[in-house]
Amino acid sequence: MRENKLKSIWQNGGGTVNGWLHIPSTWSAEVMASQGWDSLTIDMQHGLMGLETAIQMLQAISTTDVTPMVRVNWNEPGQIMRVLDAGAYGVICPMVDTREQCEAFVGACRYHPDGYRSLGPTRAMVYAGDDYAVNANKTVLALAMIETKTAMDNLEAIASVPGLDGFYIGPGDLSLSLFGKGVMDSETPEFLAAIDQILDAARRNNLIVGMHVASTDYGLKMIQRGLQFVSILSDTAFLRGAAKAAVTAMKTGVGQASGQRSAY
Amino acid sequence: MRENKLKSIWQNGGGTVNGWLHIPSTWSAEVMASQGWDSLTIDMQHGLMGLETAIQMLQAISTTDVTPMVRVNWNEPGQIMRVLDAGAYGVICPMVDTREQCEAFVGACRYHPDGYRSLGPTRAMVYAGDDYAVNANKTVLALAMIETKTAMDNLEAIASVPGLDGFYIGPGDLSLSLFGKGVMDSETPEFLAAIDQILDAARRNNLIVGMHVASTDYGLKMIQRGLQFVSILSDTAFLRGAAKAAVTAMKTGVGQASGQRSAY
Amino acid sequence: MRENKLKSIWQNGGGTVNGWLHIPSTWSAEVMASQGWDSLTIDMQHGLMGLETAIQMLQAISTTDVTPMVRVNWNEPGQIMRVLDAGAYGVICPMVDTREQCEAFVGACRYHPDGYRSLGPTRAMVYAGDDYAVNANKTVLALAMIETKTAMDNLEAIASVPGLDGFYIGPGDLSLSLFGKGVMDSETPEFLAAIDQILDAARRNNLIVGMHVASTDYGLKMIQRGLQFVSILSDTAFLRGAAKAAVTAMKTGVGQASGQRSAY
Amino acid sequence: MRENKLKSIWQNGGGTVNGWLHIPSTWSAEVMASQGWDSLTIDMQHGLMGLETAIQMLQAISTTDVTPMVRVNWNEPGQIMRVLDAGAYGVICPMVDTREQCEAFVGACRYHPDGYRSLGPTRAMVYAGDDYAVNANKTVLALAMIETKTAMDNLEAIASVPGLDGFYIGPGDLSLSLFGKGVMDSETPEFLAAIDQILDAARRNNLIVGMHVASTDYGLKMIQRGLQFVSILSDTAFLRGAAKAAVTAMKTGVGQASGQRSAY
Amino acid sequence: MRENKLKSIWQNGGGTVNGWLHIPSTWSAEVMASQGWDSLTIDMQHGLMGLETAIQMLQAISTTDVTPMVRVNWNEPGQIMRVLDAGAYGVICPMVDTREQCEAFVGACRYHPDGYRSLGPTRAMVYAGDDYAVNANKTVLALAMIETKTAMDNLEAIASVPGLDGFYIGPGDLSLSLFGKGVMDSETPEFLAAIDQILDAARRNNLIVGMHVASTDYGLKMIQRGLQFVSILSDTAFLRGAAKAAVTAMKTGVGQASGQRSAY
Amino acid sequence: MRENKLKSIWQNGGGTVNGWLHIPSTWSAEVMASQGWDSLTIDMQHGLMGLETAIQMLQAISTTDVTPMVRVNWNEPGQIMRVLDAGAYGVICPMVDTREQCEAFVGACRYHPDGYRSLGPTRAMVYAGDDYAVNANKTVLALAMIETKTAMDNLEAIASVPGLDGFYIGPGDLSLSLFGKGVMDSETPEFLAAIDQILDAARRNNLIVGMHVASTDYGLKMIQRGLQFVSILSDTAFLRGAAKAAVTAMKTGVGQASGQRSAY
Repeated sequence: MRENKLKSIWQNGGGTVNGWLHIPSTWSAEVMASQGWDSLTIDMQHGLMGLETAIQMLQAISTTDVTPMVRVNWNEPGQIMRVLDAGAYGVICPMVDTREQCEAFVGACRYHPDGYRSLGPTRAMVYAGDDYAVNANKTVLALAMIETKTAMDNLEAIASVPGLDGFYIGPGDLSLSLFGKGVMDSETPEFLAAIDQILDAARRNNLIVGMHVASTDYGLKMIQRGLQFVSILSDTAFLRGAAKAAVTAMKTGVGQASGQRSAY
Repeated sequence: MRENKLKSIWQNGGGTVNGWLHIPSTWSAEVMASQGWDSLTIDMQHGLMGLETAIQMLQAISTTDVTPMVRVNWNEPGQIMRVLDAGAYGVICPMVDTREQCEAFVGACRYHPDGYRSLGPTRAMVYAGDDYAVNANKTVLALAMIETKTAMDNLEAIASVPGLDGFYIGPGDLSLSLFGKGVMDSETPEFLAAIDQILDAARRNNLIVGMHVASTDYGLKMIQRGLQFVSILSDTAFLRGAAKAAVTAMKTGVGQASGQRSAY
Repeated sequence: MRENKLKSIWQNGGGTVNGWLHIPSTWSAEVMASQGWDSLTIDMQHGLMGLETAIQMLQAISTTDVTPMVRVNWNEPGQIMRVLDAGAYGVICPMVDTREQCEAFVGACRYHPDGYRSLGPTRAMVYAGDDYAVNANKTVLALAMIETKTAMDNLEAIASVPGLDGFYIGPGDLSLSLFGKGVMDSETPEFLAAIDQILDAARRNNLIVGMHVASTDYGLKMIQRGLQFVSILSDTAFLRGAAKAAVTAMKTGVGQASGQRSAY
Repeated sequence: MRENKLKSIWQNGGGTVNGWLHIPSTWSAEVMASQGWDSLTIDMQHGLMGLETAIQMLQAISTTDVTPMVRVNWNEPGQIMRVLDAGAYGVICPMVDTREQCEAFVGACRYHPDGYRSLGPTRAMVYAGDDYAVNANKTVLALAMIETKTAMDNLEAIASVPGLDGFYIGPGDLSLSLFGKGVMDSETPEFLAAIDQILDAARRNNLIVGMHVASTDYGLKMIQRGLQFVSILSDTAFLRGAAKAAVTAMKTGVGQASGQRSAY
Repeated sequence: MRENKLKSIWQNGGGTVNGWLHIPSTWSAEVMASQGWDSLTIDMQHGLMGLETAIQMLQAISTTDVTPMVRVNWNEPGQIMRVLDAGAYGVICPMVDTREQCEAFVGACRYHPDGYRSLGPTRAMVYAGDDYAVNANKTVLALAMIETKTAMDNLEAIASVPGLDGFYIGPGDLSLSLFGKGVMDSETPEFLAAIDQILDAARRNNLIVGMHVASTDYGLKMIQRGLQFVSILSDTAFLRGAAKAAVTAMKTGVGQASGQRSAY
Repeated sequence: MRENKLKSIWQNGGGTVNGWLHIPSTWSAEVMASQGWDSLTIDMQHGLMGLETAIQMLQAISTTDVTPMVRVNWNEPGQIMRVLDAGAYGVICPMVDTREQCEAFVGACRYHPDGYRSLGPTRAMVYAGDDYAVNANKTVLALAMIETKTAMDNLEAIASVPGLDGFYIGPGDLSLSLFGKGVMDSETPEFLAAIDQILDAARRNNLIVGMHVASTDYGLKMIQRGLQFVSILSDTAFLRGAAKAAVTAMKTGVGQASGQRSAY
């Protein structure tokens, strides 16, 4: 079975950089896949794609060796199993607040006897190899999002669910739930303490921790703080930011070199 | 009929900034439409969308008052008429090399007696108003691409075709055809002389001139040189550039603030 | 944040007319959006569209200032949140039978502390403005469908759920459940008594009431009876009715003027 | 090979009623196909669908025995052949102005030795039967649009092209070209004289004549005048008209019964 | 209402052959529908299609009289009702492990008073007829998948749920759950004993039994064993197998006649 | 630039096996790409896909190292350039009957000074590398179809067009044009003589020759006869053939082992 490169990197102590896909297009997915990310996550929660386009985007990512992941929109087994069958090598599940929810989530990612995933890895076998079914349980990542006060209260119970690979911090929802305002890249002591609490629970249970960030400098700080991976903004945010900068430069008369002046 | 804002700005001596769409997605189109461009052009030549998606992207642009345009993939009347019927307020036609080709192109954009466009502005009437058919000939832009040595040789003949609104310079193909290498943002005297030759022919025939550029500083120079509008890179180039910068920052450990740290 | 026009009209005592979309097409959605409806509802329960097309239809509606709503196919938080993130200004949830179900539904529509909606209003921010997240809870409509005997039995409990904006009556299912036969536009005393019971519960709890109708005369009666809005048939029913009439006219030799004889 | 019902009806002296599809949706196509039309034409010229959706709409029409036709957007052999391969039983070609253009059009519809259509009726064989290739030339309809003064001048030459089955009058373009204004359902003596001139040329050359109309009473007059078939408005026009009527009824307080009050 | 041919065949003691669709395409669906299957099942669990494509595939199947069915990806009422509204004449539900789950599933397939399906059979009425709503409960098939040890333990309780039409055996998951390895076409005594146990429970409760098989000889054995229908592989497996055989023949130099050498 | 493996194999005297795609699906394309073909050709002439799906299928093929090609539906420069920009490594052009047509075709495949292809290899650069533009002329295949008597008469003139890489024989059209009946896998002396005539012209002009065949044994004969590559049937034909065989086996009671009985 094709290895999960993320697991290999993490086991060697490295950190990984994850891209985030909101645009429902195989073309933007392929372009993103060519920029050097370790992994790409198709966001079926806050992104704009339906399932069928998500599957086609998994194909587009497979034109490279970038590890493909999906964030599902809710803790629903049918949906989780479909993206796994389509070849996702990791699933990020939002709003995992209790041990029971985490067990339901992880179970949906694992074949018997580790879980209750239904057998039928149609595209996954093409992507990963004929031995997919027997090796998937130990290859595919199950990452639970910690993004509410309830989850913080249940952190140890969630962390100890067998088969869980890691936590993924949703900083917007988490800060909204804990402190009443959804903020990205927060550096308040309270927020950083929450991060550390998550890191501690993770370490005790042999889990990795990832997080969404809105800038590379914050992302680097989080890697230094002990997280194993960060996701940087999204395709939409990149497009919006660069386009806005170009328009502003033209409208204010302060141009910028693009560094793309050379020949085709 | 809804006015063509580009024509108004140009008539007042202003220059306009045009965005360029390669991603086949209504979402990326809507995001681009919200960044302050004067116009957006759906590139059906080197972009990745088919006709039906292009039409849906015209709808997405219409959520704003950005002027929608389309570059067709070839000088084909059936295709030109379809994007006009779908509400494009301007058509950019590649590879217009002779007066006859220009007449065929402009004729496809104009109803009788100015041309041979077929009556049936299905979506255009929804977008522009019930009087579309009687006012379209003087509202919709027809822009011929000058991008070969042959076109340069026939510049005056092309420029004088009645109903033509302007030239659009394809710098890659033009430099390839004239000087043997496709280059963007060239500042060689020979290339700039070609630009000036096009500007001269345009002024004599009351045409505007646009051009594709790969950086805002070059774009500003071109506006100063006398062009009425420039297109800056493309959605794909913005996405690629910003994503690559983020990955590089993370991989080299030199982070950047994103300026997007605030609350939702 | 862009205001919710429906709320403004209702607060001023007015009634609104809602169109209903079953055809999975951005074109039919844009055509409907241009006919003067106060709001349009994309029906993801009995309509034919998947999620991705529904999102594109929300974009098509946004070419006008018609208020966009979605009926979800079931009381599922993942689905409810996705259509809100895509810019729906109201969600109609079918088969809300108990207070618990209503709390789950309303909670999915509201950010902390009013509910458990996850933060990430990707398209909603483009549609509504940058302050979407802080104002969405009081702007977005949550409408619970009353369409079973169980719901009638729990009417007061459902009505008193904090954050609920109104009831939406499903007359087909309600008459089937109450009286054994699914009927539209019923004027039996029993059915009208049920309507009045719903109206009473709504008034006591400061809720508005909407309903699906199959004719404009019945719709007008319902507005007079005290409902705040009605939905008239659907795009499919309009298409079917008008096409059938045209075919019948031709086949029977009894033509009708279309009133569309004028020039383009 | 499945017979072409239109040919049979016409040979028996009957007239046929044709529906017109602008909405790019298999659902609206299937709904239209269930209303009793003799034939349905997918309009790839002024409609909103791309080729792939057009093919799927041909499938949707094939759920009934309505005869499927396509209007192509231009006299292009590649496009004409594709819709025939997809199972269209008739092609309407716009803007046929000369005998040469008509020969090119008809040739694209016919296999050797009657034309130059390429062999490969992929879906047509599924729809029509295994003997499609040997019988298609005499089954599939080729209808040339007469819609310009040039075409009127060349009427006899166009009419006498071997293999042509009929004329299709585009009244908007024809009146625009002849009289300077695009009008539907015109009853001016000049316009009616042009119709009669087309009918005469058709009769002399054993062709049928069809036409687009905007009302059933005008359509009936045209059948009485000698035309073999008429197309009534379009799916979009039906949807728009019925929706507008419903909104107006509600807004003015003058309701209408829908006649659809009965049970599901 | 259009009859359910499968029920008729089974009532007469016959067995049926079911095709299985994984490819998200109306074209492959139509091709499959033309090969003589009694029924075709669109697999929304392990297949690659989203809901909207599944609906279009139901249309493609409706170009023939093959009975259309859908396997949903999970026991979710919203999803089950949508495919029924779209015209599926049978629903196969995975992972039905308990009586409660079976009741929830069957209830979603049945209108009041037999269940809680919401009224609104939009496409089903076009496919089946205007009396769909009153006859659907006794026409549409509800088939519960037996594919876990838990289900085997609860077999009698599941079988006795009123309104259930039959069992569908998922041999891969069942053998994985019972014997630790997912195997198709198993002929071990233990597996065959499980089949017989399911057949017994079915007979006692007047249910039919279907199963997925990977070869026609095994399929025939299962029909002989007492099953009412079998599904043979899938469109993907057929494509893969035939393509691989052709490549192998060419690469090894051992060609095969295709039996398709005759004229078009 | 990524090499064109076909050219390498042919230069070493090898023959290649080409698969043929008619199904408009990225999934069937990816499945086909995993079966060992040297190349796959997306057939935009007799296949069912539009341009946008064809581009997505090129992405799906790029998950493997199979060489991607496209058959365009006609000798149209706009269309030819689009599939090349999308990353096709070869274009097969139908109905090339004269030297002028061949020059137009080859010119559309080549950048200045070898042709008039427009610069903008949007996806091709992602697929092939940043040096695509300078190396494409010598990497991308231009294959002209010989399928009419006219083409046979002009064979030498067509063959000598600079930049042409080879002939592709369309046996159905060619036999129809030469002998009045479209036949696949013909072994009549007259047909084989035509093949040899094409082979001779090819050898004299350093061209390769390919052909469509309907069986592997005929394909092997053609390779032995001197052709460099053959295309075997199509995805649709494989699907149809295997499905029909399975249904027949079940209906006749003569089962076949599938050879796929092993574990997942």
